[in-house]
Amino acid sequence: MLAGFFQFEPVFGVVSSNLDTIEEVADRESFDLLVLPELCTTGYQFVSQKEVRDLSEPVPGGPSTDRLIKIANKSNAHIVAGLAEKDGKDIFNTAVMVNGSGMVSKYRKIHLFHEETLWFTPGSELPDVVDIGSARVGMIICFDWFFPELTRILTIAGADIVVQPANLILPYCQKAMQTRSIENRIYTITSNRTGTEERGGKKPLTFTGGSQVTDVKGNVLISASANDEKLQVVEIDPEQARDKSITPYNSLMDSRRPDIYADLLGKK
Amino acid sequence: MLAGFFQFEPVFGVVSSNLDTIEEVADRESFDLLVLPELCTTGYQFVSQKEVRDLSEPVPGGPSTDRLIKIANKSNAHIVAGLAEKDGKDIFNTAVMVNGSGMVSKYRKIHLFHEETLWFTPGSELPDVVDIGSARVGMIICFDWFFPELTRILTIAGADIVVQPANLILPYCQKAMQTRSIENRIYTITSNRTGTEERGGKKPLTFTGGSQVTDVKGNVLISASANDEKLQVVEIDPEQARDKSITPYNSLMDSRRPDIYADLLGKK
Repeated sequence: MLAGFFQFEPVFGVVSSNLDTIEEVADRESFDLLVLPELCTTGYQFVSQKEVRDLSEPVPGGPSTDRLIKIANKSNAHIVAGLAEKDGKDIFNTAVMVNGSGMVSKYRKIHLFHEETLWFTPGSELPDVVDIGSARVGMIICFDWFFPELTRILTIAGADIVVQPANLILPYCQKAMQTRSIENRIYTITSNRTGTEERGGKKPLTFTGGSQVTDVKGNVLISASANDEKLQVVEIDPEQARDKSITPYNSLMDSRRPDIYADLLGKK
Repeated sequence: MLAGFFQFEPVFGVVSSNLDTIEEVADRESFDLLVLPELCTTGYQFVSQKEVRDLSEPVPGGPSTDRLIKIANKSNAHIVAGLAEKDGKDIFNTAVMVNGSGMVSKYRKIHLFHEETLWFTPGSELPDVVDIGSARVGMIICFDWFFPELTRILTIAGADIVVQPANLILPYCQKAMQTRSIENRIYTITSNRTGTEERGGKKPLTFTGGSQVTDVKGNVLISASANDEKLQVVEIDPEQARDKSITPYNSLMDSRRPDIYADLLGKK
């Protein structure tokens, strides 16, 4: 299957223009699974709760999800995108997965980063592992990378690929995602954004690009530079993620010791 | 505090000679915490259960632990070393921590690698976090690196430094230990061995050296080449590992979501 990312610089607050950018690029390229950055329709650096509320939408049912479904339909593909999701009085930092028929899954970020804690309600449920036919896919969002627990849980639940819409400003994630691949024998797709946002007198945020796809041994198959604005895909074989054998005497899952870990990992 | 590793090539089966090597080097250098490789008194590539049994010793109470205590006493330091531990009919791949007064802690490897599963009984208990005055230290052994659960548990239990006696033959661990540092905001010390063992007609094993100390942001402070035979130490400040703040809105421990993880992480 052809899987990859579209790394670009969303324009803050101009949702329809960002969706135009996505549609133009998606229409030109072929892919089976495309991952877009976190909050890729709105931009990242909110300065008020009103602004977040005005820019958020129901997922599904909002115009951005509808538009993504239309794009996925033309491409006959699955698309994962980060959106600001409105649900009653709560707003979530959400990743949505769609295909041409509609929404397939959504995940509300459980580890909010920095000022996201001011704007969003943290999710309270684990992401699903979704069988899209060619692969089983789990979603995490940006700062979730810091918590190996989450990608491990997706692996235990059967994920071949962990996809990660991101708006990274720290330099650590890309290497760490190689470790996530190695320790779980899975593919990972990180879709980061580019550009700098400086809004409402806040400290400017420069996003680090470097979107990448890693294979099940942590090799980086494709990666973007800090500033590339492009869609990149690579042929991957999700079956490889189902072979968890490390040595003839060790398979990843059998070598784990949940009998020993479980108690402490459940504690703060 | 001065912390580091002694990377060297143990001679298979000649326990007293390997201890001589350790003592000579330790006597020449200054350190507060020194980490030696896994199975550093015996060598690694056993070919029979009798051989493992003949080379293993009680810990504490065996001659190797006694000798390490004597070395630690002269250095006024803590030393961590990998030993083959005999306890009744069981033999464990054990890490022992000693100071000049005696054994401080031991840990029996819970994730056995490859043919270790033939020779050793897997440990059934988590390593302790030991307060040695200048730092709180937790031990893992070699392949334990593959399981982020264990280093996370040591962090939750208060470790500032995770030390790792190792006999690494795969190329992945050193980078992954940088991730272990980042995701836990701890120091790590990996003490790997060098050389090649080819015994009893088995496939030769070449150990990859590359011992290293990482800081709490995953930077490699010191590292050895694949073949260096030397003791290296660096000044570290364990207090840095007690600041788990990532952003003004995120501390590592408060950002974790054990309410969401616990159930699945406890499953095979």
